Amino acid sequence: MVSANIQPAPPVLASKHYELLTLGDELLLGLTANGHLTFIGAQLGRRGVLLRRNVTITDEAEAIVAEFRASWARADVVITTGGLGPTCDDRTREAIAAVLGQDLVFDPAIVKEIEARFSRLGRKMTDNNLKQAYRFARGEVLANANGTAPGLWVEQGGKVLVMLPGPPNELQPMFTDQVVPRLVKLGLLGDREAFVQVRTAGVGESALEARLQPIFDRHGDALSIAFCAHQGQVDCRVSSPGDRLSFGQLEMIAEECAQLLGEDFLCFGHDSLAKVTADLLRAQEQTLAVAETATGGSLADAFTDICGAAKFFAGGCVCYSNESKMQLLDIPEDILIQHGAVSAESAVAMAAGAAERLGANYGLAITGFAGPCGGTHENPVGTIYIALYSPHGIWSRKLNCPGPRPTVKKRAVNAALDWLRRELLRTRLGATAPVRQTDTVS
Amino acid sequence: MVSANIQPAPPVLASKHYELLTLGDELLLGLTANGHLTFIGAQLGRRGVLLRRNVTITDEAEAIVAEFRASWARADVVITTGGLGPTCDDRTREAIAAVLGQDLVFDPAIVKEIEARFSRLGRKMTDNNLKQAYRFARGEVLANANGTAPGLWVEQGGKVLVMLPGPPNELQPMFTDQVVPRLVKLGLLGDREAFVQVRTAGVGESALEARLQPIFDRHGDALSIAFCAHQGQVDCRVSSPGDRLSFGQLEMIAEECAQLLGEDFLCFGHDSLAKVTADLLRAQEQTLAVAETATGGSLADAFTDICGAAKFFAGGCVCYSNESKMQLLDIPEDILIQHGAVSAESAVAMAAGAAERLGANYGLAITGFAGPCGGTHENPVGTIYIALYSPHGIWSRKLNCPGPRPTVKKRAVNAALDWLRRELLRTRLGATAPVRQTDTVS
Repeated sequence: MVSANIQPAPPVLASKHYELLTLGDELLLGLTANGHLTFIGAQLGRRGVLLRRNVTITDEAEAIVAEFRASWARADVVITTGGLGPTCDDRTREAIAAVLGQDLVFDPAIVKEIEARFSRLGRKMTDNNLKQAYRFARGEVLANANGTAPGLWVEQGGKVLVMLPGPPNELQPMFTDQVVPRLVKLGLLGDREAFVQVRTAGVGESALEARLQPIFDRHGDALSIAFCAHQGQVDCRVSSPGDRLSFGQLEMIAEECAQLLGEDFLCFGHDSLAKVTADLLRAQEQTLAVAETATGGSLADAFTDICGAAKFFAGGCVCYSNESKMQLLDIPEDILIQHGAVSAESAVAMAAGAAERLGANYGLAITGFAGPCGGTHENPVGTIYIALYSPHGIWSRKLNCPGPRPTVKKRAVNAALDWLRRELLRTRLGATAPVRQTDTVS
Repeated sequence: MVSANIQPAPPVLASKHYELLTLGDELLLGLTANGHLTFIGAQLGRRGVLLRRNVTITDEAEAIVAEFRASWARADVVITTGGLGPTCDDRTREAIAAVLGQDLVFDPAIVKEIEARFSRLGRKMTDNNLKQAYRFARGEVLANANGTAPGLWVEQGGKVLVMLPGPPNELQPMFTDQVVPRLVKLGLLGDREAFVQVRTAGVGESALEARLQPIFDRHGDALSIAFCAHQGQVDCRVSSPGDRLSFGQLEMIAEECAQLLGEDFLCFGHDSLAKVTADLLRAQEQTLAVAETATGGSLADAFTDICGAAKFFAGGCVCYSNESKMQLLDIPEDILIQHGAVSAESAVAMAAGAAERLGANYGLAITGFAGPCGGTHENPVGTIYIALYSPHGIWSRKLNCPGPRPTVKKRAVNAALDWLRRELLRTRLGATAPVRQTDTVS
C-alpha cells in the first residue's frame, strides 16, 4: 500500500538523456520480440528516467555507425543490445569502436570464462566463440552469468556506453545486478521509484479517464497522466513534470483514485492480476483449484510465476475431451451430453469438480470456443463460460470475448481471475452475495 | 516441405524503404511490449522487405513531428502505431497532419461505427471517443473490427503513410486484411515469401553455424545468413542479397541444411516446436496427455494455440501438491515420500499416470524447481526432471536449466517437446529404442 507521508522529491533526472539502440535483423524481421525495450524502459522509467528514444536497426556496420554516432552526440547514456555473439552477423563491437576512436583488445580472461561455461555444460567450445573475447581498450567488462558474450562498459567524454548481449536471460540479470548500480552511483539514475501507477481491472480506458478526470483537473499541468490498456486491465501512471509535486503528493493523488475506483482498483505498482488474487487467497488462508478447456493451461500458468504458489494453488486440470472431464473432474456424462461441454452447466460442474477433487476452497473454471475454428450457432467463437465455486455458492457467467485466439484466452483468464478477486474482496468485507458484473467483456 | 522446383525470382523490393514509428510513453516505459515491431517486421520480412528502421518515441507532439518529418523524407512507406485513442495523451493525428500540411476533418461515419461498437458491448460511449472520428482531408479510413479507433491511410507525393491503432488485437487483423493487400497492389510489397527459414532444435547457435558453414561457403556473398536463438531453438534464415540466387536455389540450399542436420532440423518456416510435434502425433494417429508441476500449465498451453488440438491432446494436469498428484494421477504416495516430488521416479509416475488416466498413447511429464525459491542441495533451482511414456517404454531425463523462472519454464517445456518429437521421428522410421541425448540443456 502507498503511504501518505510526504517524502523528499527524488533528484531531478529529467535532464539525463538516455537512448537505446537495439541491433539485429532478427528484431526488424520479427523473428524475436524486442523485449529489451520493455525491460530496460521499465527499469529506467521506475527510477525517474523516461527513455528518450529507442532505435532498432539492422546488423549492417554502416547503419550501426550512423545511428550510434547520432545517439552518442545527443545522449548522456547510450545502451546497445545484441550483436555481441559469436556468429558472422555480429558486427557491433567493431562498428562502435570506430566511432569511439578506441581499439579492441583481446582479453584472455574472457576466454577463460567462456571455456569454463562450455565445460560446465559438457560441450566443446568452437573457435568462433573467441570473437567474444574482445573488449574496448579503455573500457570494462560486465560478467555474463548466463551466456558466453560478456557486456561492455565505457565511460568516455562524460558519457556512458553500455553494450549488452541479446538473449534476455543474459541481458536482464546483467542490467539489474551490474548496470543499474553503476548508473545510480554516477548519479545518472534515481535510487527509487519516481511515479505512482494505479492499476485497474474491468474498466475501459476512456471510462477510466472520465471517472478520474475530476481528480486530475485539480492539479492542472503539475500532473502528467499516461494510460496503458492491456486485455481487460488499464494502468494509469501519475507523475509530475519537473517534480512540481512531491512523491508523497503523487501517492496521495493515487490513493484518492483508488478510493474513487473501489473494486475496480487492482493495485499500486506492477503486480499482476494473478498476484493480487493470490495475495488475497493467501491472506484469507484459502486454496484454489482450476479447470479449463479453451484457455488450455494458461489459467493455471498465471499463478505459477508466483513463487510459493503451492501454498494456495492446489492444482489444475486441462480437460480437452469429455473423457478427461469425466475422468479427472467426475463430471456426470449426462451434463456433457445434455448441455454440451461449452455451457454454463458444464462450467459449474468443472469448477465444483476441480475444487472437490483437489480439496480446495475455491474452484475456477473456463470453458468455451477460443477460435478460430470451432463454435456453434448458439455459442459462436469467442463465447466463454466461466464458473466460480466458493464457500458461499457456485455461479457461472457467459462472456463474449472478441479477437484472435491469444486475445480470447488472455481475456477469459483475466475475467475469471478478476471475478475471483472481487469475490475475495467482498468476502473480506463480510459480504456473501456473488458479485454482479456486466456479462460482456470487451 | 520446401519443394526443389526453381521458381521465378521475386520482384526486387530491396529498394523500397520502410520505416516504423511506434509511439507511446507506455512503450518507452516498458508498460507494454513493442509487439508491433515483431508483428509488422515479420509480415514485411516474409514478403521481401527488410524494415529499415524502427524508432520508438514519446507521445510529445514535438518529438513526433521531428521523427516523422525525418522518416517521411527518407522512406517510401512510413507506418505509425499508437496515439490514435481517445485519451488526452493521444496527440499523433495532429502532429502528423502538421507535417503533411493536411487538414483533419470530422467524419460522422466513424462516429456511427464507434457508437455501434459501444452499443454491441452494452456500454455508453463517452464524449472523449469523438476525438477518434477525425481523419485526414485527403486520406482514407481503415475500419477497425476490434476497437474504436480506425486506422488511417494516406498516399501523398509518391509515398504512403499508414497509421494504426495501438492495441495488438486491433492492429494485427487491420494490417493483414487491409494494409498488406493495399501495399501489394501498389507494388510496395511482394505477394509471397522471400527467404527460407531453417528452424532447428537442440543445437547451440555457434555449433549450428560451424556445422552449416561448409554449405554456405560454396555460395560466397550471394548468400545472406542470419541466426536467431530462442530457448533451445535456433533459426537460420537464408536469403540472397539482390536476388543473385533464385528462390528455388535458396530452397535447395535449405533442403541441404535440413539433410545435414538430421533430427536437429525442426521445420522450414515458422511453425512452433509444439506444432511440429502435434503434426507428428496427428500423422501417426497418436494421442498425448501431460502432467506438470514447475511449468505450471505451460506445457499444456503450448498445444492449445493449435486449432483442433482436441484431436490429439487428451488433456493435462497441473499438480502442485502431492495430494493432487495422488488424486489426479494415481501416483503411489510411497514414490513421493521415498524419492520426493522432484525426482526421476516421480516424473516417470506422472507421465505414466497422465497417459493411463486420460487414455493417451503418449505421456509427457515435467517436475522440478523453476526458482527463484525452492530447490534442495541435491536438486538446486533449475533442476528439472522430464519423463516420456510411449508405446515402447518409459524413460526420464534430468535437466539443468539455468536462468530466471520464465526461462527455466520455457526451456523445460521445449526440452520435453523436443524429446517427444525425436521419439516420434524415430518411431516413424521404425526404430523403437529411446533417443539418447545429452542430459544438460543450456
